[in-house]
Amino acid sequence: MMGGTTKSQSLGLKLVVLILASLFLNVFFGYYYVRRTVGREKSDWSASAAEEAEEAGAVYCSGHGRAYLDGKVVDGEPVCECNTCYTGEDCSLLTPDCPADANSGDPLFLEPYWRRNAARSAVLVAGWHRMSYRSYGDSPISLELERYIRLLHDAVGNAVTDGRFIVFGIGSSQLLNAAVHSLSPDAVNVNSSSSPASVVATVPFYGLYKSQTEFFDSREYEWEGAAANWVNSSASSSSKFVEFVTSPNNPDGLLMKSALDGSSVIHDHAYYWPHYTAIPTPADEEVMTFTASKVSGHAGSRFGWALVKNKSVYQKMLQYLSMNTLSMSVDTQLRMLKIFKVILAELRNEGDIFKFGYKILNRRWTELNNIMSPSRRFSLQKLSPQYCSYFQKIRDPSPAYAWVKCEREEDADCEAVLKEAGIISRAGTAFDAESRYTRLSLIKTNDDFDQLLLKIEALVSKELLSSI
Amino acid sequence: MMGGTTKSQSLGLKLVVLILASLFLNVFFGYYYVRRTVGREKSDWSASAAEEAEEAGAVYCSGHGRAYLDGKVVDGEPVCECNTCYTGEDCSLLTPDCPADANSGDPLFLEPYWRRNAARSAVLVAGWHRMSYRSYGDSPISLELERYIRLLHDAVGNAVTDGRFIVFGIGSSQLLNAAVHSLSPDAVNVNSSSSPASVVATVPFYGLYKSQTEFFDSREYEWEGAAANWVNSSASSSSKFVEFVTSPNNPDGLLMKSALDGSSVIHDHAYYWPHYTAIPTPADEEVMTFTASKVSGHAGSRFGWALVKNKSVYQKMLQYLSMNTLSMSVDTQLRMLKIFKVILAELRNEGDIFKFGYKILNRRWTELNNIMSPSRRFSLQKLSPQYCSYFQKIRDPSPAYAWVKCEREEDADCEAVLKEAGIISRAGTAFDAESRYTRLSLIKTNDDFDQLLLKIEALVSKELLSSI
Repeated sequence: MMGGTTKSQSLGLKLVVLILASLFLNVFFGYYYVRRTVGREKSDWSASAAEEAEEAGAVYCSGHGRAYLDGKVVDGEPVCECNTCYTGEDCSLLTPDCPADANSGDPLFLEPYWRRNAARSAVLVAGWHRMSYRSYGDSPISLELERYIRLLHDAVGNAVTDGRFIVFGIGSSQLLNAAVHSLSPDAVNVNSSSSPASVVATVPFYGLYKSQTEFFDSREYEWEGAAANWVNSSASSSSKFVEFVTSPNNPDGLLMKSALDGSSVIHDHAYYWPHYTAIPTPADEEVMTFTASKVSGHAGSRFGWALVKNKSVYQKMLQYLSMNTLSMSVDTQLRMLKIFKVILAELRNEGDIFKFGYKILNRRWTELNNIMSPSRRFSLQKLSPQYCSYFQKIRDPSPAYAWVKCEREEDADCEAVLKEAGIISRAGTAFDAESRYTRLSLIKTNDDFDQLLLKIEALVSKELLSSI
Repeated sequence: MMGGTTKSQSLGLKLVVLILASLFLNVFFGYYYVRRTVGREKSDWSASAAEEAEEAGAVYCSGHGRAYLDGKVVDGEPVCECNTCYTGEDCSLLTPDCPADANSGDPLFLEPYWRRNAARSAVLVAGWHRMSYRSYGDSPISLELERYIRLLHDAVGNAVTDGRFIVFGIGSSQLLNAAVHSLSPDAVNVNSSSSPASVVATVPFYGLYKSQTEFFDSREYEWEGAAANWVNSSASSSSKFVEFVTSPNNPDGLLMKSALDGSSVIHDHAYYWPHYTAIPTPADEEVMTFTASKVSGHAGSRFGWALVKNKSVYQKMLQYLSMNTLSMSVDTQLRMLKIFKVILAELRNEGDIFKFGYKILNRRWTELNNIMSPSRRFSLQKLSPQYCSYFQKIRDPSPAYAWVKCEREEDADCEAVLKEAGIISRAGTAFDAESRYTRLSLIKTNDDFDQLLLKIEALVSKELLSSI
């Protein structure tokens, strides 16, 4: 009897505990459920946008591509967009005999950085976000974004921002011509005594300076070619010169100075960031341009800025931008604010974008040099280790581009020589240099670089074998 | 005994049912909980972006403002940005004696539409979203977005898209000068026989045509003023003319045709949408420009497009855009795709944006007319009801702007007369018209319009009282 009672009592106790536990769990889960679903219906207008983006981000593309939210949709799912030379539904197939494309300065080496920082760098744009033309009140640009750009320059130490105005442009492309226009004399016409400004640059230079200046063909300026032609010329004292100085230089990565005394200089500092070059000292010039494309890698967003010392040049640039495109996309400014916030928060930490970028580019440069150094047919530009105030040590080179010279007399068209070997490069002539030179981009995807290395290796091996 | 057994059996049964039900609920809630939390930790990189946006969206600004995600932050919360004349932390304070600002064509009358459709129109941009310069492969623009723009024109019936190329620009502003450039003769210089194109428009016209053409001052074209000066002129047969035709016209809302035979025409159809005008028939011209600013109200995003018939003009425009800004922000294209999808899904439904916009603008126009019609001092442009193929009925006018004429001889400067009465308008001279005219914008916020109405009412009352 005792045993029976104890048994049934103990069973009853167990049952009670089970029921209580179950009820407790129901209360806990039920509260959670109600909070997630009922609350959601009232205010969670962001849910479907977030879900869509996650879905696109989760599409598997074998590490050789990615699906985007606004890509082509097949069977209700965005499809993979594959890296060069990869195909197939999941980008798993390597196309045989696919040429290595090292032409463009597409900064996709930074894409993995943003994949890693996906949670911190995403941004949700409301349908009603900043619809106005004058979205920032009396300011033509987002003051928060401007503040973060100043903080970034100050923290990196690559440019002086004190006493500088900031203008935003659609990439630095737009700012380059805006600066040429603003540094040229006003109202040049048949009746006025002022003549157009002469626009020049030191060879080899980024081709857009020339093509853009010629294309817009304003009465206020004229393309006059290589700066070297005007050094010590009598014209250089009588004419107004506008000079482009790219530092570090595109294509060869060298730090540059103005060639003409007394010219108005546009300092293009697109690559003056620690992933590409040592930063010896903060740049401190009158007009300096920068672009998100080369800092964060967001080329597709089209965001650039200029630091401008002179108020009247600044105002002329603002007028140019206003006449040209009125203002800068609020969507891009919103996204860039988030991007710069992440970069700043991680500076000198584990997730430093400059350390990340430097590591990749330095490795690529070293690998390319190792393969090409036995060659007598091809040579690369010489770059030396240099003290970098950001990394606070002497650092080895990590240029954005390799500037290849074909040394054999018969290889007068270096771009064609590489093309023959399955390598797409950008011909020296695009930089107003000899065709004996050509440029290889080192800042594209890992896939692009791996293919480039394979083709270069084959080309050099062939040379070495034939010279035995 | 029987009763006791039945009772305890029935109690036991109830207990079992209770336990089973409770356990079932445990399983259901538990599954839900695990899915929401465990799954989330692995992949939910969108959560913090969504949360931030919801937080900004939830800030209370009394219906006279809104807080934005990238606005100034005080005490960890983005602050309200108030409508004109409203101040205070929550925008609840009306500034006394604040002038009514009816100057700009800021399309904020559509903001409430996107507030209502918040859940469907939000978009989440990943940090790694489309970083490349060539984000759409061989196409310079998003093919999905292009597809939706064609669908929208086809569904609204306001433009023929068959056999048309589409180019995207940073607002239609950029496309206007791109079109002028592309329709002008190539390579005009001292040695060539071709002379610059003459750029003209019919008065009153949107001021940017003139200021932009003069500002960029290319050797290929010249601003030549009012088209009327060249009708029947001998020059019009020998010169190349590029004519701007705005239809419906800004400022007066009239449907317009080209004034010069044989000119190359840029048809600016910014306002050729059913909220502003009847759509008698689809526009079917060689070069037509449109802008998101006036369809969806997203002026701050800077998105415009042109439909172009001639392939070589199309290619020249692409070259212009490429030299000017390289390409169009991927962020803006992503957002616009979402916006156009919502508009399309709602066409002719309850949530039709054109019905929504028409209702507001028609009411504003009616109210303004009711107040101003007793006045002999001021008059408005005359607009008649017209058949609209989109609404499939005769519709009353709903123009974007009121084109006010000061009728008294002494009121030669109409803008100044209104300013005196606390109304900021855009002077007729900005449209190359007489200063006896001035433009009032009817497409801004409800607050702006309410204030305008109050000031106009006071002005007309004063006139009527003094004439008794």
